Amino acid sequence: MAPMKVHGIPPSTATMRVLACLLEKELEFELVPVNMQAGEHKKEPFLSLNPFGQVPAFEFEDLKLFESRAITQYLVHEYPEKGTPMIWKDSKKMAYLGVWLEVETQQFDPAAGKLVWELGIKPMFGMPVSPEVVEENETKLGKVLDVYEKRLTESKYLGGESFTLADLHHLPNIHYLMNSQVKKLFESRPHVSAWIADITARPSWSKVVAMLQKH
Amino acid sequence: MAPMKVHGIPPSTATMRVLACLLEKELEFELVPVNMQAGEHKKEPFLSLNPFGQVPAFEFEDLKLFESRAITQYLVHEYPEKGTPMIWKDSKKMAYLGVWLEVETQQFDPAAGKLVWELGIKPMFGMPVSPEVVEENETKLGKVLDVYEKRLTESKYLGGESFTLADLHHLPNIHYLMNSQVKKLFESRPHVSAWIADITARPSWSKVVAMLQKH
Ligand SMILES: N[C@@H](CCC(=O)N[C@@H](CS)C(=O)NCC(=O)O)C(=O)O
Ligand SMILES: N[C@@H](CCC(=O)N[C@@H](CS)C(=O)NCC(=O)O)C(=O)O
Repeated sequence: MAPMKVHGIPPSTATMRVLACLLEKELEFELVPVNMQAGEHKKEPFLSLNPFGQVPAFEFEDLKLFESRAITQYLVHEYPEKGTPMIWKDSKKMAYLGVWLEVETQQFDPAAGKLVWELGIKPMFGMPVSPEVVEENETKLGKVLDVYEKRLTESKYLGGESFTLADLHHLPNIHYLMNSQVKKLFESRPHVSAWIADITARPSWSKVVAMLQKH
Repeated sequence: MAPMKVHGIPPSTATMRVLACLLEKELEFELVPVNMQAGEHKKEPFLSLNPFGQVPAFEFEDLKLFESRAITQYLVHEYPEKGTPMIWKDSKKMAYLGVWLEVETQQFDPAAGKLVWELGIKPMFGMPVSPEVVEENETKLGKVLDVYEKRLTESKYLGGESFTLADLHHLPNIHYLMNSQVKKLFESRPHVSAWIADITARPSWSKVVAMLQKH
């Protein structure tokens, strides 16, 4: 059986999200590099995998998926017995996990993603950073992290008492931000700080970081 | 048994999303108004329902949820036999539905939500509209709708051959935008236009619109 294919590149946060999930689920896969400098993601055959022309895209037998969080959701539901479950069997626990999955998307990612772009990606390409955008989004992210700090006093992880998809989805943005001035927003909140130390220490995540460093 | 409670107001797009789902699922509920002018959503007891201080919040017995799409996901999974299913039993169909649920969140809503704010909400409060924001987001939305136009030639609805949660999640933003200049972006694309006519004609949606008009 051909392994699952992820089309993408390790520095892409959305690609990293899918790689982390595959490693955590102990599923075999192949990373198929996309030459983004050459604009391969905006041309066929890539557009047939993702009509929005973004990485990652996922291929397995006749299944073709895109959107990183849709891919991870598919993997955790399709392979509940492989690796770390990262979801719950109980429907109430699952409802709360659903809330925190949405919080990552709706509250955390909009601010964190803009900060990753300004402080993590733009400098790599020698593009000028916008101090206004940084300030505005640090303020927004700080408010989100205040809610996380409270949540993490009540529950060891965001989605419940063990590591779930809600935690995993945060890892790529956190990786970039912990290597930037935004680090202070995490470190000044003790429960957030302990949570980050815990989730970034997972062997699956170390493997994703190693792929990024080798890239 | 006390009915489910939705804390929110009909003009809120996120509240409308949950109301539409409850009606489609034929579940009994009570809408508990939140006095947003008085800032009730930024104070206790509301903050105990949603620490981010946004409507809607959902309460049923000891379950307290927030984030509109987490609430709808809970409802469709918890009550598969009630009303319209809006999800699939088959895991591959569910994987594609998952992709289009994410597309609504990641591609459609960012542009559509900003246009609803500029053209639907700001004028109600006499706030000045930003032509630059409108132009930028009309361009973005147009590109998203090009992908929808193609998708809807292959599949009657976004999430498959019948109406699913992926379609439903679009309704609130579409409602505001069809009453604005953005209408032209929908009407110029025949499959998108037919899809909108179809999904907005659902009896559940007419009831949500009636609640909005009575508000
Ligand atoms: N919501 C998408 C975002 C994907 C995304 O933005 N990918 C970036 C790299 S991290 C990309 O391909 N950017 C190129 C572009 O948008 O043109 C997901 O989660 O998969
Ligand atoms: N992602 C949230 C968005 C909720 C939201 O933005 N609600 C608006 C009304 S539509 C609100 O409460 N705004 C007040 C605020 O953000 O302070 C959801 O889908 O429930």
